[in-house]
Amino acid sequence: MAEKKMGAGLRGMVAGETALCTVGKEGTGLTYRGYDIEELAEKARFEEVAYLLLHGKLPTKAELDAYIAKIKKGRGLPQALKDALERIPAEAHPMDVMRTGASMLGNLETEAEDFSDQDDAADRLLAAFPSIICYWYQFSHHGKRIETETDDESIGAHFLHLLHGKAPNELHARVMNVSLILYAEHEFNASTFTARVCASTLSDMHSCITGAIGSLRGPLHGGANEKAMALIEQFSSAEDATKGIHGMLERKEKIMGFGHAVYTERDPRNAIIKNWSKKLAEEVGDTALYPISEAVESVMWNEKKLFANADFFHASAYNFMGIPTKLFTPIFVMSRLTGWAAHVKEQRAKNRIIRPNAEYVGPELQSYVPIEERS
Amino acid sequence: MAEKKMGAGLRGMVAGETALCTVGKEGTGLTYRGYDIEELAEKARFEEVAYLLLHGKLPTKAELDAYIAKIKKGRGLPQALKDALERIPAEAHPMDVMRTGASMLGNLETEAEDFSDQDDAADRLLAAFPSIICYWYQFSHHGKRIETETDDESIGAHFLHLLHGKAPNELHARVMNVSLILYAEHEFNASTFTARVCASTLSDMHSCITGAIGSLRGPLHGGANEKAMALIEQFSSAEDATKGIHGMLERKEKIMGFGHAVYTERDPRNAIIKNWSKKLAEEVGDTALYPISEAVESVMWNEKKLFANADFFHASAYNFMGIPTKLFTPIFVMSRLTGWAAHVKEQRAKNRIIRPNAEYVGPELQSYVPIEERS
Repeated sequence: MAEKKMGAGLRGMVAGETALCTVGKEGTGLTYRGYDIEELAEKARFEEVAYLLLHGKLPTKAELDAYIAKIKKGRGLPQALKDALERIPAEAHPMDVMRTGASMLGNLETEAEDFSDQDDAADRLLAAFPSIICYWYQFSHHGKRIETETDDESIGAHFLHLLHGKAPNELHARVMNVSLILYAEHEFNASTFTARVCASTLSDMHSCITGAIGSLRGPLHGGANEKAMALIEQFSSAEDATKGIHGMLERKEKIMGFGHAVYTERDPRNAIIKNWSKKLAEEVGDTALYPISEAVESVMWNEKKLFANADFFHASAYNFMGIPTKLFTPIFVMSRLTGWAAHVKEQRAKNRIIRPNAEYVGPELQSYVPIEERS
Repeated sequence: MAEKKMGAGLRGMVAGETALCTVGKEGTGLTYRGYDIEELAEKARFEEVAYLLLHGKLPTKAELDAYIAKIKKGRGLPQALKDALERIPAEAHPMDVMRTGASMLGNLETEAEDFSDQDDAADRLLAAFPSIICYWYQFSHHGKRIETETDDESIGAHFLHLLHGKAPNELHARVMNVSLILYAEHEFNASTFTARVCASTLSDMHSCITGAIGSLRGPLHGGANEKAMALIEQFSSAEDATKGIHGMLERKEKIMGFGHAVYTERDPRNAIIKNWSKKLAEEVGDTALYPISEAVESVMWNEKKLFANADFFHASAYNFMGIPTKLFTPIFVMSRLTGWAAHVKEQRAKNRIIRPNAEYVGPELQSYVPIEERS
């Protein structure tokens, strides 16, 4: 078989087809099934976007109502899953909790082998992820066994409700909605590609999502918003940040939340979340984090021509809503699940097992040496 | 960025380098770090092969002794993991149990972020997998909470011991040893590639292995030996099998355990496991499964020029040792873990995040339609 060698990390290589998303296409930035991210973030509900990604079209009013009702019904967790979550200590990595929660649910509500209930499996995970992470968080950190079923209309509000023990105000629910839309889908990034490789063996939905969570956990992929938070928290004011970032650049330290593997000029998601972070700053009377974030953005652009990506202003936005930093990446999972599951469906619909070759760079054929003769 | 389009499933495409394995290279068949599979299966212990894959060389006597001692020490399971396993019902998919076991362990014994304990993480999983699957199996199927620490020298014997409640005889321990060697490593198959994509984000070992298990679970990847078992169990004799297979071929039904995506002439692992299956057949006085298997192999070759692959005679071999069919693929995990973990180490040592592109085949840019106006 003729072999073609590809660049490291398959960069610039087309590994398959998708109808879900364009990233960095000239003039459009980011689109989900042809809809521009800016329009979706301004006008849509996250549940609509989830429906769009998973079902290929924007829902009618009746379809959306039914979809929201279905998601509301999926918020309760089986006792066996709650028992497992209670055994995970407070110091565990929250992404390990999400990964284990998805995997455990697969034992209890296994997808049918013919994939006839693939939509149900995806919708259930969509409904259950906020419950999973908050149930573990409240139990491990505060010793509380929370009730995970709420009446909140949106997934974002449901999450904030479980986290804070009360329904969020309108602004917070709105920002969560926007945030979940922004993170929902991003073509063949590493976690999505993981889900597709897994799907290509015709494995079940829970395996695909569990694997994707594992990949998103990696510091080169998810977690940049947590790192951005750690960065801006170091500074006491915009002036302090300006000075500090200059120093970091001089010392060639890594600064997270800037630049992007695919976008070259700007990340279209940045202006959107930045605007909402500003509104939240005004609401909470912030005089530090937002100006610090702006100062960091300004230095990075002036000095390095690096633009803030989707993650950077998410840090302050989440912080203003009282979300602990360690839960930032699990929110990414709650959102990106929609893209992952849509890719799993797409892979299954036109499948060939993903099985590349490797270039062998190891030793030539050699004879086994009896153990007594080895050194 | 210039894009190169690749064939479906990346078939024939080189997606990276490896020093671990050659598959189907002319004249050699299958090699692990340059050692031919036939020689390893005849002369080596699986623990030696694990060491070879993970550490790059065959161990000295002192190194192997230390390695075996380390694995023996890793057989106990944390109470929190046992609690989680007890919550998984008997009707769960055993690969979901393996996946959840690996993921849960990651919460309790999280790998260090700098990967300084990556060998410990891999060795611990190598030691713990037989305990994980047998603990769940014995509890869910027989209501027994077993002690998972045994004194067996080998991983294969440890597994049979936990499964049957007594140490296996020499022949069975030997066959398990061979079987674990045969399944240990196979280049960039889908589960290994999953592990490498996950590793490329610099995620932790447990995420990589959890993801790989999820991919191996798929019916196009693992599980062929279970399907082969279901096939041969249908027949009462060699004659019955010959007639039955002819009928299946006429009806164009799928027959598992034959042919291979990479090997074109033969699977070098088949003759080895076939030979051991024959010895086991003699031991148990079998007059059905082995002759049936031979008859199926013969028809498939005569009629379709399809050779038996590694999975086909594994079915009868495992059955002769009293292993329930549903545990066949988990044994694959116990073995392939060594290859997966070695690939994770290799990916980390020379990493670039694996992030291919997709060809967009979706709708052109379109305007958002208010929900009232949709149909």
